[in-house]
Amino acid sequence: MDLKQLNPEIIDVQPSALRQFDHQISQYPGIVKLTLGEPDFNVPEHIKQAAIQSINDNQSHYTYYWGIQELRDAASTYYREKFGYNYSADQILCTVGATEGLAATFKTLFNPGDGVIIPGPAYPIYKTLANVNGLTPIMVDTSDSGFVLTSEQVETAIAAHPDVTVRGVVITDPCNPTGVVYTEDQLKALVPTLKDRELWIISDEIYGELTYGVKHYSLSTWLPDQTIIINGLSKSHAMTGWRIGFAFGPTGVIDEIAKAHQFQVTTPTSIVQYAAVEALTHGQDDAAQMRAIYQKRCAYLKQELTKLGFEMVEPGGAFYIFAKIPEACHQTSTQFADRLAADYHVGIMPGKPFGDDRYLRISYASSDENIRTAVSALGKLLQDLTK
Amino acid sequence: MDLKQLNPEIIDVQPSALRQFDHQISQYPGIVKLTLGEPDFNVPEHIKQAAIQSINDNQSHYTYYWGIQELRDAASTYYREKFGYNYSADQILCTVGATEGLAATFKTLFNPGDGVIIPGPAYPIYKTLANVNGLTPIMVDTSDSGFVLTSEQVETAIAAHPDVTVRGVVITDPCNPTGVVYTEDQLKALVPTLKDRELWIISDEIYGELTYGVKHYSLSTWLPDQTIIINGLSKSHAMTGWRIGFAFGPTGVIDEIAKAHQFQVTTPTSIVQYAAVEALTHGQDDAAQMRAIYQKRCAYLKQELTKLGFEMVEPGGAFYIFAKIPEACHQTSTQFADRLAADYHVGIMPGKPFGDDRYLRISYASSDENIRTAVSALGKLLQDLTK
Repeated sequence: MDLKQLNPEIIDVQPSALRQFDHQISQYPGIVKLTLGEPDFNVPEHIKQAAIQSINDNQSHYTYYWGIQELRDAASTYYREKFGYNYSADQILCTVGATEGLAATFKTLFNPGDGVIIPGPAYPIYKTLANVNGLTPIMVDTSDSGFVLTSEQVETAIAAHPDVTVRGVVITDPCNPTGVVYTEDQLKALVPTLKDRELWIISDEIYGELTYGVKHYSLSTWLPDQTIIINGLSKSHAMTGWRIGFAFGPTGVIDEIAKAHQFQVTTPTSIVQYAAVEALTHGQDDAAQMRAIYQKRCAYLKQELTKLGFEMVEPGGAFYIFAKIPEACHQTSTQFADRLAADYHVGIMPGKPFGDDRYLRISYASSDENIRTAVSALGKLLQDLTK
Repeated sequence: MDLKQLNPEIIDVQPSALRQFDHQISQYPGIVKLTLGEPDFNVPEHIKQAAIQSINDNQSHYTYYWGIQELRDAASTYYREKFGYNYSADQILCTVGATEGLAATFKTLFNPGDGVIIPGPAYPIYKTLANVNGLTPIMVDTSDSGFVLTSEQVETAIAAHPDVTVRGVVITDPCNPTGVVYTEDQLKALVPTLKDRELWIISDEIYGELTYGVKHYSLSTWLPDQTIIINGLSKSHAMTGWRIGFAFGPTGVIDEIAKAHQFQVTTPTSIVQYAAVEALTHGQDDAAQMRAIYQKRCAYLKQELTKLGFEMVEPGGAFYIFAKIPEACHQTSTQFADRLAADYHVGIMPGKPFGDDRYLRISYASSDENIRTAVSALGKLLQDLTK
């Protein structure tokens, strides 16, 4: 059988570079990792107990493909109270984590060839999902505007692609990998352009509960008719492996996304849906404890990295610092990260897979001890490289 | 925003007609349903305990996107012993139920426009997945060959579509909706044609453990290089809502399917993966108890339906009887099923969504009492229609 005849949209895509790097550095004994975007906390006990209860209650049968009604009701209330989302239960789709919501949304909103603006540096899956759906990803470098997308950048990107019908834009807020949180004014400044251009907005707000001293706003407040919000419990309730997320969108569009979802997975896991009801009805404060710890680590890491000569944008949320490698090192992000792993057995994600080879993404979803070890190793490597 | 500009591959597809019919008849108070393809059993206790253990062990973090190694190892052994599958762990992908495995496989194997042969009557998702991937579904009526696909039918279908590059065929064995189990000879008779034509075979064997007095064979035995097997624990271990399945395929192809899977869902639920290890290492006999009960119900239903004048092919597996409505009724399957629901509050799936409007699909994954009620209602409706 000729593998060359398989779908080039899949063949041409590489497996996640983030996972590959993480896998590759696992060869080093005792490696300390600040690589992955995953809470180092466990699922809160009351949510675990709800999952166990649903197992004992034999909640093991097919659920409605949109998700169980209790969960959609709970999500409607929870996110309204948290962030001011304005969606009724029938505008909320329960997905297999944020990834599946993104996949169903990319599949539904666009036609092959359509352009989608992706502000970079960005989590790589947006570009991949554009590619596997035959779309044209339009990467916009935001490193000169504080890693915040501006109307001017949107207009410039559209003008630079006269042959492409640009129909969408991705906003990740709080941002992975930069930790940037858009202010209310920064979002409002985007509204006229996004409205005039009739762009669909895929608003990935999965880190919405992890902000430090600043408030999270949602573009859906001003552009409810053209925004699809992707959110979920992976980060707010440390439920990454349990795979439960939500897509919120206007009636009509969300109905179509639900169809794509149905033929992609049928439903998320039933017992996790019941556990998620508990998270959204009694777990309003679960993120607060984690947030306090993340914030301390962030402050420590920012201080130490600054001492070492790294430059970075003020991190306002998520659990990453995106730090620029001092120029005196003369190292690309890949060279630097490879050497840090090989010489000091510390894993930090190079910026390249996110689209900027000058930076490192340092995750502080790792223990205080690991973070101290990493800071020490970074100091030693800088000495090696600049002596 | 103009919904007409959304992806027509999604817009043009209807939500599952099976779920819609089931939902529609739920309006009738006290309705007895023999509609859905879902075991009426609960998950076996030892698997539930393993899931609870994994929750208590905080197995809540991201797993490798192929699934955890223990599960892939266990699947390799289990299915080798059950059905003679010959796949090492690295040729096995853990999916979010069989549906997600099918979706990733359809996406990967084919290019837009390619033809895929689907023997009918068929579970509707195959045609839907062909449509949402821009393929050409080629429906082949097998009602004149005992609901078994033949080489001649494959050749005729290819000849009838000279403008289409036919690159795949779906085999559902045991079959939903007909209950037919292919014999070894029937499968072997297909091999030369499938080999000569270099067709990918998507072999949906999700009902493989539910056969009654006959053995389940897999086309992969003879065509290992061109078969992708879809299987999972939904039917064999009554784990429908938990969403865990597997795709088995030759190295190279399965690696590509795994990429499509990664960008579609990341992974199946972690705690379900750990529970599935228990199912595959200590649950070899779990299906036997269910099978014995299904077999009794099947025999009873077949006997009663025959008395009432229904014709049917010998059901050898799954949990369906596909029964032809007596011609004296002068009813399409939809008319008949609608009236049965309205007049007698009994739900039975019309054959139309499966591609044959002369038949009913009667699921006996329902209690003995429900089955007796349905038989009685069928008798009364036949009297009404033929008096």
